[in-house]
Amino acid sequence: MADGAPIFPAEEYQGRVARLQAGMAAQGLAALLLTTPADVFYATGFLTRFWESPARPWFVVVPQMGDPVAVIPSIGADLMRRTWLRDIRTWDAPDPRDDGIGLLAEALAEAVPTPGSIGLPMGAETHLRMPLADYEALRDRLAPRRLVDATDCIRRVREVKSEAEIACIRDICAIAGRAFDRVPEFAAEARPLADVFGDFQIALLAEGADWVSYVAGGAGPDGYGDVISPAGPRPLRRGDVLMLDTGAVKQGYFCDFDRNFAIGPASDTARRAHAALWQATEDTLAALCPGMRARDVHQLLCARLRKQGATPSGGRLGHGLGVTLTEWPSFTPLDDTVLRAGMVLTLEPGCMTGAGRIIVHEENIVLREHGAELLSPRAPADLPEIRA
Amino acid sequence: MADGAPIFPAEEYQGRVARLQAGMAAQGLAALLLTTPADVFYATGFLTRFWESPARPWFVVVPQMGDPVAVIPSIGADLMRRTWLRDIRTWDAPDPRDDGIGLLAEALAEAVPTPGSIGLPMGAETHLRMPLADYEALRDRLAPRRLVDATDCIRRVREVKSEAEIACIRDICAIAGRAFDRVPEFAAEARPLADVFGDFQIALLAEGADWVSYVAGGAGPDGYGDVISPAGPRPLRRGDVLMLDTGAVKQGYFCDFDRNFAIGPASDTARRAHAALWQATEDTLAALCPGMRARDVHQLLCARLRKQGATPSGGRLGHGLGVTLTEWPSFTPLDDTVLRAGMVLTLEPGCMTGAGRIIVHEENIVLREHGAELLSPRAPADLPEIRA
Repeated sequence: MADGAPIFPAEEYQGRVARLQAGMAAQGLAALLLTTPADVFYATGFLTRFWESPARPWFVVVPQMGDPVAVIPSIGADLMRRTWLRDIRTWDAPDPRDDGIGLLAEALAEAVPTPGSIGLPMGAETHLRMPLADYEALRDRLAPRRLVDATDCIRRVREVKSEAEIACIRDICAIAGRAFDRVPEFAAEARPLADVFGDFQIALLAEGADWVSYVAGGAGPDGYGDVISPAGPRPLRRGDVLMLDTGAVKQGYFCDFDRNFAIGPASDTARRAHAALWQATEDTLAALCPGMRARDVHQLLCARLRKQGATPSGGRLGHGLGVTLTEWPSFTPLDDTVLRAGMVLTLEPGCMTGAGRIIVHEENIVLREHGAELLSPRAPADLPEIRA
Repeated sequence: MADGAPIFPAEEYQGRVARLQAGMAAQGLAALLLTTPADVFYATGFLTRFWESPARPWFVVVPQMGDPVAVIPSIGADLMRRTWLRDIRTWDAPDPRDDGIGLLAEALAEAVPTPGSIGLPMGAETHLRMPLADYEALRDRLAPRRLVDATDCIRRVREVKSEAEIACIRDICAIAGRAFDRVPEFAAEARPLADVFGDFQIALLAEGADWVSYVAGGAGPDGYGDVISPAGPRPLRRGDVLMLDTGAVKQGYFCDFDRNFAIGPASDTARRAHAALWQATEDTLAALCPGMRARDVHQLLCARLRKQGATPSGGRLGHGLGVTLTEWPSFTPLDDTVLRAGMVLTLEPGCMTGAGRIIVHEENIVLREHGAELLSPRAPADLPEIRA
């Protein structure tokens, strides 16, 4: 494999595009316009951390028939040529006179008759990664063609993972599992949480992650107040529950799970909460099957937590996972999505352990015809203790 | 400092908001709507890696007078309360019925008379981080108020850094400098580039980076083909020039510079190219002053490279730097931006070393009234050799 070459053979991407095109046909779309790192990577295999720079927009046009067209800054031409795409059109970005919009309008006009519909993601969990003024100029330029919402078309395809994708996610889950196993080497009483976050990222890289896009966590007596804060200088204390959560990346695929550790002997509260979360997850793993709705999983997790005597925390209790840290669907009371075999999902139950304190537990799975298959190495049933 | 508390005192953010409000007054804007991690962090100090999840939108409304209002998912309420903001409105996201748009419309309607103008970034190097369909619904709901482009208003303020910001960028530059010093410890002939990328990220974390948002690089005889590819399994070879480039992050601020290394004795071509890049940078550092335009810097770098007998590569030759990896302006022939004291910038000249091969050199500076002040530890004048 050459540096930067896509990890899968062209057939993988051709299959994805064929599935997108089937959805487009059903919705009457003549083309799809993709602008985000995840959608572009999904359709082409184009993988770069260069998206971190907001300076340049990148476009891929998926026509109703035939192969996608890349309309990209020339700085990315070499890398895009290593993908399966053959029609690659470039401009020297950033260009304040026309930052790719002329080229993009041409590519779309070729693919879409007048009048016709161009789909792009406009719905939940999406955004348009290009300047809004350029989008409005593009829309006016393409009229009477219409720009319409294609979120469903894209998510129906992205939600169901191929075996090649599942293998990638299993791989990064195993890497994160080995990094979690090493937490007792560097988490200890009096160690600042910021240092623990640093060492945890080092462990993820040492175990084989390509990069670490997400680390969060918390520590406090019997639990933590929130799960999205960066680390500060507060040292770990005996009696804390330490949680680390990571979205590490291998070959463009994410894991997303956490682990909890007691600093010194765990209190009964913490021990019971962890056991309840573990058992509620175990029960839900056994019950999961295709055909359930996302909201059923939320209900199931809450019911099993209550059965264990625990009080479920608010918010969603899991979600999709793949080429971004979180994907559709969401395990909330309001998400009607029907679960399908091949979906990669997180189960993320949380429970209250005191005023403003929670413990959260998370596993990653792939849903099979017969039920859930774990991708993350299962957490220990008992809250592990780090000797203080 | 509590975990997750903003790094600067409230006065820093109040000053920024006052400067935004002065720009808003000049443009006749009754409110600004901010949706991206960089803009929200800039106005409030709210820092989290949770933006990696595309599931939830986050909003900050800056009124023409008074303090900003945060309209955010409840999962972020705890962390936002640690900032200087007092008006924090939350909803339980994701909510397919209304994902914050009702709350946001209310907050904007309070701040903006009818008719009035709400500014949001719509121009170069910006995007709207919320679903497009929600944006269109919001726009209709707020009519006859108008949503207009406020890119200039925001960039004029963000471009000029405070001393506190400059200190943060100097800090992460020093961290990256120490990590670059350690490259000879892990880059060696026969070592796969992917392993070198991994060890370099570990070195950045070990030297004190909070996280590593960007690493790119390349290696090849006398130079590399592109500068945005992820690493692959190709081993380093004697005669390669290895380049590593990083956007590491400390307290929310980025560095962005690279270093080159010869694997074994450098060829005359590589040695001369590196010396030309170094000297062209040195000459440009000496010439830089406020009042020049961005395009003048492009011209200056090209002229000094040619004076050294080198052929400038295409594309931009530097840019702004701060709360994102790259910011306005761009050192291209087309960027008219007038440089001001307090701007933090990268100088990034590249030159051709063969067919499809380049070497790129980069430094980070802050522009002072009297000229350029280096923030990155200056690269060695001679291409360093790693013994093969």
